[in-house]
Parts: sequence; structure tokens; C-alpha cells
Amino acid sequence: MTTLKDYLERNADRMDKVINRYFGSAYSDLFKASAHLLHAGGKRLRPAVVILAADAVKKGSSDDLIPAALALELTHNFTLIHDDIMDGDVTRRGVPTVHTVWSEPIAILAGDVLYAKAFEFICLSNAGDLEKIRAVKMLARTCTEICEGQGMDIAFEAREDVSEAEYLEMVSKKTGVLYGASAAIGGILAGANPVQADALYQFGVNSGMAFQIQDDLIDLYASSEESGKDRASDIREGKQTLIAIRAREKGLDLAPYRKDLSDTEIDELVTFLEGAGVIDEVRATAIERAGVAKEALALLPDTEEKRLLGEIVDFFIDRSF
Amino acid sequence: MTTLKDYLERNADRMDKVINRYFGSAYSDLFKASAHLLHAGGKRLRPAVVILAADAVKKGSSDDLIPAALALELTHNFTLIHDDIMDGDVTRRGVPTVHTVWSEPIAILAGDVLYAKAFEFICLSNAGDLEKIRAVKMLARTCTEICEGQGMDIAFEAREDVSEAEYLEMVSKKTGVLYGASAAIGGILAGANPVQADALYQFGVNSGMAFQIQDDLIDLYASSEESGKDRASDIREGKQTLIAIRAREKGLDLAPYRKDLSDTEIDELVTFLEGAGVIDEVRATAIERAGVAKEALALLPDTEEKRLLGEIVDFFIDRSF
Repeated sequence: MTTLKDYLERNADRMDKVINRYFGSAYSDLFKASAHLLHAGGKRLRPAVVILAADAVKKGSSDDLIPAALALELTHNFTLIHDDIMDGDVTRRGVPTVHTVWSEPIAILAGDVLYAKAFEFICLSNAGDLEKIRAVKMLARTCTEICEGQGMDIAFEAREDVSEAEYLEMVSKKTGVLYGASAAIGGILAGANPVQADALYQFGVNSGMAFQIQDDLIDLYASSEESGKDRASDIREGKQTLIAIRAREKGLDLAPYRKDLSDTEIDELVTFLEGAGVIDEVRATAIERAGVAKEALALLPDTEEKRLLGEIVDFFIDRSF
Repeated sequence: MTTLKDYLERNADRMDKVINRYFGSAYSDLFKASAHLLHAGGKRLRPAVVILAADAVKKGSSDDLIPAALALELTHNFTLIHDDIMDGDVTRRGVPTVHTVWSEPIAILAGDVLYAKAFEFICLSNAGDLEKIRAVKMLARTCTEICEGQGMDIAFEAREDVSEAEYLEMVSKKTGVLYGASAAIGGILAGANPVQADALYQFGVNSGMAFQIQDDLIDLYASSEESGKDRASDIREGKQTLIAIRAREKGLDLAPYRKDLSDTEIDELVTFLEGAGVIDEVRATAIERAGVAKEALALLPDTEEKRLLGEIVDFFIDRSF
């Protein structure tokens, strides 16, 4: 029985090979900028979801879906490049961000190139033309929603009164829908019927939301060595995470923590939030979403791939960095 | 017999109505930013080319192609929004640019939203699924090339030795290919065979190149009231236009004109360039490209729409602003 870890490693190797084939020779500086983050690694989780969903619908149907699976990774990377400009972030995946190595204009273009490549690659399979059109439409609608999610995230920075419903909508759009599209597109290209495709979409969206909520918790618990970013940076920046929203609803004031914090101060804050029940509640919300995601899989026949999709959700909420 | 002017006005009215239907209600601030330049007008030349090409291939086939035609206008608008950020331009079509009204992050997102909508809208027609896939692939490849063209244009700013071949490649990618895609996609969705589609593509690319070369001339001749930008701004900024390249090849030094210029000084410069034969040569290149564009149309049956496509090329090189 394949473990998820083995499966993901094999999948990442396979995707890395394809990435090298398509993006290995830097025939222009712009192309090199486009491929910069792609070459910096990553778990290739979205392509894995595309492939697993396709095989969960029809075993063996993923054989020619590697470029289409890569399309979802390209979409993810284009949003990372553009988000890094918007957020002024200087490192990502352990390497300097595209706009810091090149420039903001080149980074905008580099993201735009990957955006185009995503739509080119999504069409490269032996799936039926109607199925490809459905995949293109879903990818397009997904990109619009990701932009809306990032727009909400930016707007939240100027607000102190973000509700849980607003937060969940933002997370659904910013992170959920691309996992939803990954699962549904894999299914659609493998010939899923509309009910199966919708179930896969719901699986993906809820998985992605669980992933993001877990990310909020990791920010508080993981050391900077583990997570690759400063511990408690969300709290220090006053970000409207689910932790901050739940704390506010309980009348707890996190404003005093909006400053540089020592590890001891962060530990005190964690104890404070745990004591108030905030952490348990946030954790419960992540688990709830993971549960919805796994329930959505019930519609599919029991296969190795369905089991691995379920394990991906478990991994999303069990990981500590 | 319909005049081109009447046709373009009717087409623009029709496109404006569709734009209002799809982008009229600003249900979010981001959506409003996306629609900002769309509402600022424009001749809707690319949609006109889509529609005319479709009807030139098969009369009446454009009836349901309005959303697909709009997709080419959306693509154009996404590139304008992103280009304005890169170039730091503050006005466009008589209104403030998106990033000056909102912010650079929102402008990046606003362009990204139109980008997604373009791929959504290109799929909205009764054309065959295979034809739609061909249109999606062509639009995707075109977007990559537009980015390459803009990347070249940015790289040229730091150079003094751009060759005519490099300039023509840049213009082909930055302006030509989107007209090429407009014509070819209109044809493809109307059922054009590959030879017709290729001819329409060549028509569009060469028309767009002629358009851009004429733009270089307009910069020198049109008053700022006519063109909406400062007269001779390309020369003053030391831009590598075909005029500058040809002047350099003749050993003429335009460096002394890289400064604020009075109208009298610009008139002197024009006389100087005319005397050296630069203007005639550049004009000849525009006419040559227009000729190639019109020759490409020879493959199509003689129709009203073919005549109007030919007149669009004439308009591109005859306009004085």
C-alpha cells in the first residue's frame, strides 16, 4: 500500500521533471523570471490532487494529464508572484521573490506569462473537447475568485471588524477554490459526471480551507526554522485570522501583541489563547472543514486514490509546519 | 454600402451595451477597478475584427460571437492596466489609470480579473468545442507573446542599439499578435479551415504592426490635443522607435532632442528627419505591412466584410491621431 508521503514524493519528482522539460531552458530573461519560483520546489500538492482525482474517477485516466496537472501549479505560481509584489514579500520558498531579483514590472509580466501557460497547458490532454472546455471555464472562474479572495485579504488589513463569515469566504476564495478546481478538473478530464465533479470540487474547497486555518495555527506554534517565517507574524501584524476573530469575539484584546515579540511572550500569548478556548475552537473549525471534505469523497468508489485524497486532508490539518 | 466609420460606430455601440450588461453593476470595488478602462470608451477595434473575420468566413456566423469578441477587448484592457503600472502612466483614454485611482495591488488584481474573464468569455458561443479549444490555445499563446513584447519594450529602454529586426519583433508581439488572434479566432469560431485561419492571423499581425508604426509617426506630427499625449514624447524620452532606429542608421544624432522641446523645435526636427528621408522610409514600412495584411485577405471570398477588413488597414495607416 502506497503511503501518502511516498506518493507525494513520486508525484513531485514527476512534476519537477516536466517543469524542467518545459521551463528548464531559459531562452529569455522574462521566461527565467516566470520559472524562478517553479524551480524553487514545493510539494506540487495541486497537481497531485488533479492526478488522484482523475484516477479516483477512472483508473489510469491520469496517464496523459501531467501537463493539465501542471496547469494548476502554474496558476498557483502566478498568484504567488503577483501576491508577493502586492504584499512586498522578499522571500518565498527560501529564495528571493521574483520582483526582488528582477523588478516589479518584470514580476508582473512573469506572473502574466504563467497565467497564459496555465490556460495553454490545461488544453493539452487526450480528454474530450467538451471536457477541456469545462476545465478551461472552471479554471477561468477560479482565477477570478482567487483575485477576489486576495482583494478581500488586502481590504481586511484596514479593518478590525472582520466577521468569521467574511474570513471563511476570503479563505475559500484565496486558497479553497484552487484545490476545488484541481480536484474537479482532474475528475472532469477523466470523464466524471456532474455530480462527481461537484463532489470533487467540494472536497477540494473544504480541504483548502482546512489547510489555511491550520496555517493560522502554525503561525502561532511553529518556530521560524520550521515554518520559514517569523513566529506569530500574523498576530504581530494584526492580521484578521480566525484566531484573532475568535479572540475578539470573546472580548480578548490582541492589540498589545501587535509589536515585536520574544519567544517567551509568544508562549504566554499561546497559553492565554489556549486558556480562553480560542485554539480549541479554531482547531475544531479546521477539523470540521476536513470532515466536510472527506464526506464529499463518499460519492466516489473506494479506491487507492480516494484513500490518498482523504489522507491529503488529514495531512493538511495534522502538519505542524 | 456601409462605410467603415458607420460600421465601427455600430460595433462600438453594440460592444458598449454588452460591456454594460456584464460590467455595469459594480458589485465589488475590485470589479469596478477591472471595468474602469472598459467604461472609458475606445473604438473596440479588436472585437470589430473578430466579428468581421467571422462573417468574412461565413456570413451570419458572428451572431453569437459577441462575448467571444469581447474577450479580445478584455485581453487588450488587461494588458493596458498592467502596462500602465509598469510604465508609471497616470492617464489613459482621458481618465486616470487604474493604479492611480485605486492602488498598484488592486490594479494588478484588476488586470488579473479581466485576464480570467477573457478566457471565460472566449468559450461562450455556439461554435464547436474543438473550435473553442483552438481559440483558447491561440489566446493563451498570444498572451505569452504580448508579455514577451512588453518585456522587450522595457529592455529596449536601457539600450541604444536596437535593430530594426528587434523593433519589428517587439511591435509584432506587443501589438500585432492580438490583432492576429482577433482575426484568426473570429475565423476559427466561424469554421475557417487552417489555411483561412492562418491568412486571417497574418492579416491581423501585419495590420497591428502597421498600426504601431503609424503610431510612431503620429507621435511626431499630432498635437497633444489631437493625440492625447505630449507631442514628440518618444523622441524626448529617447524611445527606440522605427524613426529613431532609421535616423541612427543614417548617422543622425537624436540625442540633442532628448529634452523638453518647443513646437518650433519639434517642427525643425521634423524638417530635419524629412530631409534625411527618415519619414518617407518609416512611412513606406507602414504601407508595406498594410500591403502584406491586405494580400493575406486575398484567400477569402469577396464580401462586404472582407472589404471592411481591408478598410481597417487603410484606416490604421491613414489616421493622423
